[in-house]
Amino acid sequence: MEKFELTILGCGSALPTVRHFATSQVINVREKLYMIDCGEGAQLQMRRSRLKFSHLNHIFISHLHGDHCFGLIGLISTFGLLGRTAALHVHAPKDFGPMLQSLLDFFCKGSGFEVEFHPVDTTRHALIHEDRSVSVYSIPLRHRIACCGFLFKEKALLPHIKRDLIDFYQIPLCEINNIKNGKDWVTAEGKVVPYTHLTTPAAPPRAYAYCSDTCYLPELSRMVEGVDLLFHEATFLHEDRQRARETFHTTALQAATLAKASHVKALCIGHFSARYEDESVLLDEARSVFPATVLAKENLVIRI
Amino acid sequence: MEKFELTILGCGSALPTVRHFATSQVINVREKLYMIDCGEGAQLQMRRSRLKFSHLNHIFISHLHGDHCFGLIGLISTFGLLGRTAALHVHAPKDFGPMLQSLLDFFCKGSGFEVEFHPVDTTRHALIHEDRSVSVYSIPLRHRIACCGFLFKEKALLPHIKRDLIDFYQIPLCEINNIKNGKDWVTAEGKVVPYTHLTTPAAPPRAYAYCSDTCYLPELSRMVEGVDLLFHEATFLHEDRQRARETFHTTALQAATLAKASHVKALCIGHFSARYEDESVLLDEARSVFPATVLAKENLVIRI
Repeated sequence: MEKFELTILGCGSALPTVRHFATSQVINVREKLYMIDCGEGAQLQMRRSRLKFSHLNHIFISHLHGDHCFGLIGLISTFGLLGRTAALHVHAPKDFGPMLQSLLDFFCKGSGFEVEFHPVDTTRHALIHEDRSVSVYSIPLRHRIACCGFLFKEKALLPHIKRDLIDFYQIPLCEINNIKNGKDWVTAEGKVVPYTHLTTPAAPPRAYAYCSDTCYLPELSRMVEGVDLLFHEATFLHEDRQRARETFHTTALQAATLAKASHVKALCIGHFSARYEDESVLLDEARSVFPATVLAKENLVIRI
Repeated sequence: MEKFELTILGCGSALPTVRHFATSQVINVREKLYMIDCGEGAQLQMRRSRLKFSHLNHIFISHLHGDHCFGLIGLISTFGLLGRTAALHVHAPKDFGPMLQSLLDFFCKGSGFEVEFHPVDTTRHALIHEDRSVSVYSIPLRHRIACCGFLFKEKALLPHIKRDLIDFYQIPLCEINNIKNGKDWVTAEGKVVPYTHLTTPAAPPRAYAYCSDTCYLPELSRMVEGVDLLFHEATFLHEDRQRARETFHTTALQAATLAKASHVKALCIGHFSARYEDESVLLDEARSVFPATVLAKENLVIRI
């Protein structure tokens, strides 16, 4: 199975604690890395998780609260020191463009690579990035400031070839890619061998959705329906739902309710308020509604 | 003895490693905290060292390389979230003023406290801050960009009163502060009791000097002569002195040579290049010249 995995770099909320780093995570799709949010310390946590800086070309910022973006300039600065030449693409709410440019001008003058800024419209569910490995969509969220989540959809893989049948029909190697892409094979005798006979289907493409920070939004179901893994913030316990509502955050129970209603395969909760010293209460609450829930923690890796 | 101690929050150099945080340290003088440099992760490290955010009112930034200041906006942002009202004073090279203001305008709007910026002239050895506990002087250094160190001189403490003599002469309590401040006591019979007879001198005021980042500058001796503790960068081993010279850094041997020539009481070396996995080689090199050397490390506390 091709690699599609999530590494949590930080899963705390705004106030620093000794237990958590600020929000940041990395999706590894076939050894290409995509970062979501970049709180302070993200570059250090990448090192600790042994993720290769050079494999990271896209960073997606959900919103412009410091705990989701204060690590960005440090990471970019380090890229410069390491002699990076490949362009780095930063996708973030549009207001961040001029600020990022000032930071780059002030701290990263003369670095050998371009930082390309891609403004994201946080009010729309739209395709914002596409390459050979993934399609990335924005997911409009509701927080105190403009904010969106991200949906990563793996591109469909080509089917696997059946070696023994290739040998049997003496099909030349140069035809294999055509067959994988859906071309039937015609033997010297004119017999048509359908490509479906010569291949086994690849695993269905996987999907990962990231929703943080946001108040509880049942309508997200439409966008995260059936994903293999949903990361959803669960800043508070349901007994603190009043506080959650006031601050535009979600409770563990609400995150689990959304996961269940959306028929996702697994749920990872994070962005924990500093008030819960023992976060197992958040896990227990979520599992009471949606058993396939795990608790985010620093340097946790989840294979999707 | 009144408190005068150094806590190392981070002592790595520019490239992040899993061993070190970027440069930051805190001086505690009689429970007032003064931060020197504020690399990424400084606020997290303050938490880990159990240093109270509310006791920190002054931050001194040596120069504007990211590994010495990228943690500042996160720390200030956290102060805002915690409801701080006391002004925060940031002393840094003057170019930082407009950049800091943009960051504050963008990320910290509506916070309930003022951030007062105090430009530091890095080319002069001058008094840059003074309060009841300390006098702080800039120390001009030579680095790739404008940079200065800082000299913290404890204010002289008042002498200790001899309780038994106060009782013996039946001196009223309201006179004690006058005596501590040098007023002699005159008995009812007109006998003069000198204040020096009624007190024991306080411990001599202590001094701490911070020198990072800089090339080797023997002339620093003049400014750090006899300090109780000198922190000096020792980015490289002496065998890498060519690299040290090119990058305007110092070797462990050079730092120790300066400490010896300056008759300081103790030396702490830090700002280690990521290339040395085992930093004891740096310590050994420094100790060969100046035995009273210690190696900085995260959350190390040194009583001065």
